[in-house]
Amino acid sequence: LMKVGVLGAGVMGAALGKYLAGLGRAVMFGSRTPEKARGLPRLSGFRNEVGTYREAVAYGDLIVLATRWAHTREVVEESGPFYGKILLDCTNPETPDARGLVLGHTTSGAEEVAKWARGARVVKAFNHVYAELLDAGPRFYGGSATVFYCGDDAEAKACVARLAEEGGFDPVDAGPLRNARYLEPAAQLMVQLVRVQAMGPSDVALKLLRRS
Amino acid sequence: LMKVGVLGAGVMGAALGKYLAGLGRAVMFGSRTPEKARGLPRLSGFRNEVGTYREAVAYGDLIVLATRWAHTREVVEESGPFYGKILLDCTNPETPDARGLVLGHTTSGAEEVAKWARGARVVKAFNHVYAELLDAGPRFYGGSATVFYCGDDAEAKACVARLAEEGGFDPVDAGPLRNARYLEPAAQLMVQLVRVQAMGPSDVALKLLRRS
Repeated sequence: LMKVGVLGAGVMGAALGKYLAGLGRAVMFGSRTPEKARGLPRLSGFRNEVGTYREAVAYGDLIVLATRWAHTREVVEESGPFYGKILLDCTNPETPDARGLVLGHTTSGAEEVAKWARGARVVKAFNHVYAELLDAGPRFYGGSATVFYCGDDAEAKACVARLAEEGGFDPVDAGPLRNARYLEPAAQLMVQLVRVQAMGPSDVALKLLRRS
Repeated sequence: LMKVGVLGAGVMGAALGKYLAGLGRAVMFGSRTPEKARGLPRLSGFRNEVGTYREAVAYGDLIVLATRWAHTREVVEESGPFYGKILLDCTNPETPDARGLVLGHTTSGAEEVAKWARGARVVKAFNHVYAELLDAGPRFYGGSATVFYCGDDAEAKACVARLAEEGGFDPVDAGPLRNARYLEPAAQLMVQLVRVQAMGPSDVALKLLRRS
């Protein structure tokens, strides 16, 4: 059974933690204020613990990074070492108002995270998936929502792909980690649809259609 | 019947011209070397003409921009005036090897095109759709491929959406023109899947799943 440490106990961290607990993984939420994280919705029937960021990283084989972008560097730098661990980066380098990206094109949030989390095997994934969709489930009339993932470590990517697939998502390999330069804008496209055009966050999802 | 001028008689220009001719639009292909453009596959049963770039712009109510990025500025600047015309920008600001973008994040190809084509009502669309998919058609087992479009002129956007819908695509409004900063990376994601991972260009497409 894989153990998961979740950094960031906000809406996305809670949803991904619950999703992974639902897949039978043991989850520890890391938080700057563990006493606050204890208030997370109980993941009934599954073991989950709460600790500091550093405790969550030490606990997990897989670390989920689900912090607000403004805090991400600080959280990553204070919670290592990450050596050899799989770091699932589902952050987006959003502006504080979440209406744009603070970086892109020549780099990506994921590439920056990989510099900060030395030794981690970073995989970008789930960043274009709303927490509400994780809760509602990936199945639509036209098929299952896609999870695009990218990274430079084949084994880490395969592990993340499996976690997407076990939960009913359709994982699609989007290439090396630098392709987060495409996946982070894709998340921002979803933000446009959900926040500006008021589509329900659990009512829309990206899918890669394929002829079979 | 709307008249369409197509700038760029390459693979994408030919495919979009054929697509629009198939929807009953009269098409003129513009080319630097009109004699070469005459060699385009005949769009049998539909009227289509060949002229210079400037003639194609003068001819069309809708102008399709389908040039290689390296030539785009020059072609746009020599083929106006565009005043009041709808300019459907399906270019991508790709590097010469088509494995990356030459600009993004703080601007987009579409925003640059809008500066060059003064007075045009620019809509970014079809840039993430492969020519081969236009030929093969948008219908997949899981539904119809999406055409994301963005722009700042509501009437021009509605016109482009209608052209997508008439051909069986699922048009999705992606907001203002600056959101081309998200749609151009989406095209590059498709390039990764098709050119690097060798998925068939008519075998994959993006779709926005929606709960109905």
